[in-house]
Amino acid sequence: MKRRIYLSMKSLAEARELWLSRFDLDAMATAEEIPVTAALARVTAAPVMAHRSSPGAHQAAMDGFAVAAAATFGATPDHPRQLAIGREAFPINTGHVMPPGTDAVIMVEQVPDPEADPITVEAPTFPWQHVRRVGEDLVTGEMVLPEGMEITPWAQGALLAAGVTRVTVRRRPQVAIIPTGSELVPLTDLDRDLPAGRLPEFNSTILSGLVTEAGGVAAVAPIVSDDPGALAAALKEAIAAADLVLINAGSSAGTEDYTYQAIDSLGEVLVHGVAMMPGKPTVLGVVAGKPVIGNPGYPVSAVLSFEQFAAPLIAGLAGQRLAPRPTLTVHPAQNLPSKPGLTEFIRVTLGRVGDKVIATPLPRGAGTITSLVRADGLLVVPALSEGLEEDRPVTAELLVASADIDGTLVVLGSHDNTLDLLATMLRRRDHRLRLSSGHVGSLGGLMALRQGRAHLGGSHMLDPGTNTYNVPFIQRYLAGAPLKLINLAWREQGLMVAPGNPKEIRTIRDLTRPEMRFINRQSGAGTRLLLDYLLQEAGLDAGQVQGYAREEYTHMAVAVNVASGTADAGLGIMAASRALGLDFVPLLPERYDLVVPETTFADRRFQTLLAVIRSREFQEAAAALGGYDLKDCGKILWEQ
Amino acid sequence: MKRRIYLSMKSLAEARELWLSRFDLDAMATAEEIPVTAALARVTAAPVMAHRSSPGAHQAAMDGFAVAAAATFGATPDHPRQLAIGREAFPINTGHVMPPGTDAVIMVEQVPDPEADPITVEAPTFPWQHVRRVGEDLVTGEMVLPEGMEITPWAQGALLAAGVTRVTVRRRPQVAIIPTGSELVPLTDLDRDLPAGRLPEFNSTILSGLVTEAGGVAAVAPIVSDDPGALAAALKEAIAAADLVLINAGSSAGTEDYTYQAIDSLGEVLVHGVAMMPGKPTVLGVVAGKPVIGNPGYPVSAVLSFEQFAAPLIAGLAGQRLAPRPTLTVHPAQNLPSKPGLTEFIRVTLGRVGDKVIATPLPRGAGTITSLVRADGLLVVPALSEGLEEDRPVTAELLVASADIDGTLVVLGSHDNTLDLLATMLRRRDHRLRLSSGHVGSLGGLMALRQGRAHLGGSHMLDPGTNTYNVPFIQRYLAGAPLKLINLAWREQGLMVAPGNPKEIRTIRDLTRPEMRFINRQSGAGTRLLLDYLLQEAGLDAGQVQGYAREEYTHMAVAVNVASGTADAGLGIMAASRALGLDFVPLLPERYDLVVPETTFADRRFQTLLAVIRSREFQEAAAALGGYDLKDCGKILWEQ
Repeated sequence: MKRRIYLSMKSLAEARELWLSRFDLDAMATAEEIPVTAALARVTAAPVMAHRSSPGAHQAAMDGFAVAAAATFGATPDHPRQLAIGREAFPINTGHVMPPGTDAVIMVEQVPDPEADPITVEAPTFPWQHVRRVGEDLVTGEMVLPEGMEITPWAQGALLAAGVTRVTVRRRPQVAIIPTGSELVPLTDLDRDLPAGRLPEFNSTILSGLVTEAGGVAAVAPIVSDDPGALAAALKEAIAAADLVLINAGSSAGTEDYTYQAIDSLGEVLVHGVAMMPGKPTVLGVVAGKPVIGNPGYPVSAVLSFEQFAAPLIAGLAGQRLAPRPTLTVHPAQNLPSKPGLTEFIRVTLGRVGDKVIATPLPRGAGTITSLVRADGLLVVPALSEGLEEDRPVTAELLVASADIDGTLVVLGSHDNTLDLLATMLRRRDHRLRLSSGHVGSLGGLMALRQGRAHLGGSHMLDPGTNTYNVPFIQRYLAGAPLKLINLAWREQGLMVAPGNPKEIRTIRDLTRPEMRFINRQSGAGTRLLLDYLLQEAGLDAGQVQGYAREEYTHMAVAVNVASGTADAGLGIMAASRALGLDFVPLLPERYDLVVPETTFADRRFQTLLAVIRSREFQEAAAALGGYDLKDCGKILWEQ
Repeated sequence: MKRRIYLSMKSLAEARELWLSRFDLDAMATAEEIPVTAALARVTAAPVMAHRSSPGAHQAAMDGFAVAAAATFGATPDHPRQLAIGREAFPINTGHVMPPGTDAVIMVEQVPDPEADPITVEAPTFPWQHVRRVGEDLVTGEMVLPEGMEITPWAQGALLAAGVTRVTVRRRPQVAIIPTGSELVPLTDLDRDLPAGRLPEFNSTILSGLVTEAGGVAAVAPIVSDDPGALAAALKEAIAAADLVLINAGSSAGTEDYTYQAIDSLGEVLVHGVAMMPGKPTVLGVVAGKPVIGNPGYPVSAVLSFEQFAAPLIAGLAGQRLAPRPTLTVHPAQNLPSKPGLTEFIRVTLGRVGDKVIATPLPRGAGTITSLVRADGLLVVPALSEGLEEDRPVTAELLVASADIDGTLVVLGSHDNTLDLLATMLRRRDHRLRLSSGHVGSLGGLMALRQGRAHLGGSHMLDPGTNTYNVPFIQRYLAGAPLKLINLAWREQGLMVAPGNPKEIRTIRDLTRPEMRFINRQSGAGTRLLLDYLLQEAGLDAGQVQGYAREEYTHMAVAVNVASGTADAGLGIMAASRALGLDFVPLLPERYDLVVPETTFADRRFQTLLAVIRSREFQEAAAALGGYDLKDCGKILWEQ
C-alpha cells in the first residue's frame, strides 16, 4: 500500500500560473463553418465581412408615397402639385423597396387626402428624404463581426442582413470524462437497488454540466475499475478524440495514484496536489500536447477543481471569456477558522439583515454536495489567513442572483420539518422570496437575533422552573427588544427507535439501561433542554445515559443514527421519525414558536410568510407530516 | 389607405403593467418529467425529495484501515495492538464502503508500517472516526431541491446521489413566430440573388435567438403575405400549439394594421402602440387566453419590444428569473436630445478614458441592426426627459462584460479601413483588448481628446498654408498637451466613380461640370479639408460643385452613394472604392496619423496596439487593401 506524498504540491496561484501558461489556447483551438441560424452563442473564428449591402435596395423609411423629388419642387399650399397614383406617386409602407424612378417619400400625414387619385402635394420634398439608402447599415465588404466575438441574436440578424448564411466559428472543445472506481455503479443502474458496497456514479453528470456551461462538449467514457493499466488504456483512447481529458480520479490518494501513473506513463505530470480545500487531490498533466486533469472524487472538490483548472481551458478553446462571478461584501455569521497554507472555499447562505448581508456557513465537508446546492455564495479564505472572523466584512462570490439575496428571509434556530414546507410554499406564493434556515439550535437562534444576524428565530425551549416555553429565555437573552412570539406548531416529541422497537423502549428511564446507546442533540438545542427536563423529572442523571455526549444538529441527523444502527434511540419529533420509517415513542407535545423582532414583523416579506403560515394549505400539509397540532399556528402568543 | 392612429398608445410603464398583470404565469405554466441527466438549467416544478440517503452506506472519509473501534481501545505506543489484515483491519480508500463489522478508520499516516500484516495500532480510535455515516449529506425523504429552483450541475449530482433519476420541471414555453410581409424572401433563398423589390427575412432568426435566451422554444411559421385573412388563419393555427405567439408585424403601420385586425378578430387587443423608441408599433393582445404580440418589423425595434413584453412572459412561464442587466455610470460623449413623451433606448459604445466611462452614441435608426451589434450598452432616456447632456453622468445597461470595457481603446476621428484590420489583429493578439472606433472626422477626434473623451485621435488634416499634416491643427486645438503623432499610413485619396468611369472624370475640375452630382464628407472631416484644398489649388469655388452640401460620415458611405447611383463621384480612399468594385481616380497621397496623448502612450493597452501597428502582419494586410503606403507606419513623426 504505497502512497505518493504530495511532493510537488503547489499553491493554488502557482498551480494556476504553471497550468494556464502552459497552453497556447488560440493556437490549439480549431474552427468549423456552420449555418448562421445555428450559431447563437458561438464565437467567430475570423472576421466576417458583408456579402451584400443592407439595405440591399433603397427602402421607404416612412409610410406614405414614393415620388421623384424633382416632381415636387415648387409645390406650395397655394400652388400644389397633383401626382397620379401608380405613375408619379406610389403608396409605400416603411421598409418596402422604392419603385424605380422614385427617390423620396412623402409621409402619409402630409397628404391632405391619401385616398384620392391624384394626390395633392403642398410642399416640396428633397431627394432621399425618408429613404433608407442602399448600404446605410452595412456595405458590401465591410466587417460585420470581428474575430472572437460571441454571436448574439442580433449579430445573427446582421449576418443574414449582410447575406452571410454560414459563419466560421470556434469548434466547441471536446472534453472526455473518465469516471474511475471499482465501487461505482453507472447511472443506468441507479433505479435499481444498489448492491452492497457499491456507490452511484454521478460526478460525470456534474462534470458534464460544468463542461457545457464552460462552452465545451462532454463525452463520458465507461467507468474504469481501479487498475492502472485499464486507466492508461482508457486515457490513451480518450486523448485521441478529445481536446481535454478529465479523469474523475476517485476520492482517495489510491485512485489518484493510478491517475498519476497513467498520465506519467503517457506524458508528463505538471502538478500533483494543489493547496486548496476542497480540491487538494488535483493532478494536472499533459499527454500528446493535450491537457489531462485528474479531478478529485468528492463532488465539491470536483466542482471547485474544475472551476480553477478545467473551465479556463475549455472557455479559452471555445473563444469565450469566463465572466468572473459577481461579488458582494458580506459578514460571516460566526468565526470560520481555516488551515493556513491552504486556500479554502467555504459555501455560505446569504441573507440581508438590516444593512448587512449575513453569510451563514454550510457544512464544509467535500462530500457534502448539498452544501453547494444550498449555497448562495462562496467565501474564499486566502492561503496566508488563519480564517475569517465573525462579523468582519469579507467578499463573497455569488452563486445566485443578487435579487435572490434581497428576497431571502433568514431563520436561525431549531430545526423543524415544517420549515422545508414553509420554504416551498413561500416560494410558490412569491417566487422572489426564499426562506433560508440555519440549524443552530433554539438558543443559537436567540443569540443570532441579538447580534442582528437573522430575521427570525425558531425556538422550542422549555423552562423547567416555570414550565413555560421560550419567554423566560427571551427575557434573559433579548430583554427589552421589541418582538413577537408567533406559534408555528405544537409537535410531538418522543423517542425515535428502530422499526418494531426491538429493544422495547417505553420511557425516558429505558435510556439508562446499560446496553442502550443514545444519540443526543447539541448543547443549546431545545430538544436537549427537553431531555434534561425529562431526566430531571424522572430523577435521573445525564451521566447514566450512554451517548449523552454524542451530538447531532438536526432531528433528521438523529433519525439517521437510529436508522443506520449507530444508536438505539434519540429524542426528536415524530415527523423525522416517520420520514425514515422508524418507530416512535411519544413523550410529550411541545411548542415550537417563531421569534419575530418588530423590524421583521413590519417587513413585507415576513407578512407574506405569515400569510403562508396562516393558510389552510400550509396547515393541512403540516398536519399530514404527522405529530403536529396546528391549533395555535400563526397566533401571536406573546410580545414585548 | 386607411391608417389606424395610436388611439390607445400607452406609456412603456403603463403598457408593461397592463400586460404583465394580465397573465397568471404560474397557473399557465405546465410541467414535464425528464431525466435528471437532461435537466441542466431547467427549473423544478415541484419540490424534489430524496429517494435514498447519501451516502447510502457508511463510507471511509480518509485513506487507511477500516477497523472496529472497540478493538483499538487501550492501545498505546508501549502497548500497541496488532490487527490482522482482512480479518480485523481492512485497507480502505476514501469514499469506499466500510466492511461489515467496522465502524472507524485509522488514517494510513498513523500506521507505522502500512505494508505489514498484521498492522500495528498505537492509539485508540473511537466509533465513527473518519467515517461518513449513512445520510450525512441527504436523508431519505428530505427535500433535495425546492420548487422553482434552476438546476445546476451540482443539483443534478445531488438528485442522482439521492437516487432521483427523473425530475419534474417546468416545460419550456412554446413560442410561435409568424413573419409577415409580401416583400420578404425566406432564409433558405438567401444564398441566391434577391429578386428586385424583395428583402431577406431575418427577424425570425433574431427572435428565435431571443426566445432561446429567455428559456423558450421557438417555432417559425412560413412567411405570411400582407393579407389580413391569411394572417388571421396563421394566428389561429399558431395559437393552438403555442404558449405565446409573436407576429413580426412588418415595419409599417400598414402591416401593423393587419396584426391588429387579426388579433381583434380572434381575441382582444390590449395595447396598440407603446411610447418607446425604437419599438413604438408594438401590438399587445390576447387570443384564447394566450398572449399574442405584434412585434415591430425594424430589427432594433423588434429586439427592444421583445425584451419589454415577450421576454418576461417566456421566462416567467419557464420559471426562470430574468436577471436585470448589470449597469454602469457613464458619461455621454455628446448631447443626446430625445423626444419627450417617449422612452428612448440609445445604443452606445463604452470605453474607460481616465476615470470616466465615455458613452459614444451609435446610429439611432431602428433599422440599423449594426447599432446593436456594435453596442456595449444601452442608455435609457426616460419619457419625461428631453434628452441626455454631454458629460453628465447617466446609468447605462451593459450589453458586454465589464472587463470588455476596461479593455477597450477608444479611437475617435477620421475613418480609415485599416482601423477594422487593427481591431481584428489587436483582439487576436490579446483577446481582452478591443478597439472601438467612432467616426466623427479628424477635427472631431481632436475635440474629443481635448475633452478627455477618447484615448486616441485619427487624423489626416492638411493645412493648405503650410502644406503640413495635423501639426498646425494640434497646435491650435491641443496646444501644450503632451502627445505624440504616430503615422498609421500614407493613403491614396482620389475620386470614387462608377465602374468603367462612364462620365469620364479625370480631375477635380470635372466636378464642376453641370450634369455632375457630387457627394461630400461632413464638415471637419480631413477628406473635406482636402477637397477644399484641391478646389482652391485649382482656382475653383465650392458653389460650383453640385452636391457639395450633401454630407456623409465615412468613406464607405460615400462609396455607397456612388455605387447606388445617387452620386457620380465622391472623394475618398482607394480601399473603400475597391471594396465596392468602383473605379478610382487617384489625386494625391495623404498622411493618416494617430494622435496619441502621453497618458495613452504609457498605457499597456496602447503599447500592445503599437506592437500590432509595427508588426509585419498588419502592414502586409494593410498594403493588400490597396492604396496604402506603409513607409512611415508606426513611426513617431512629431511630439509636443
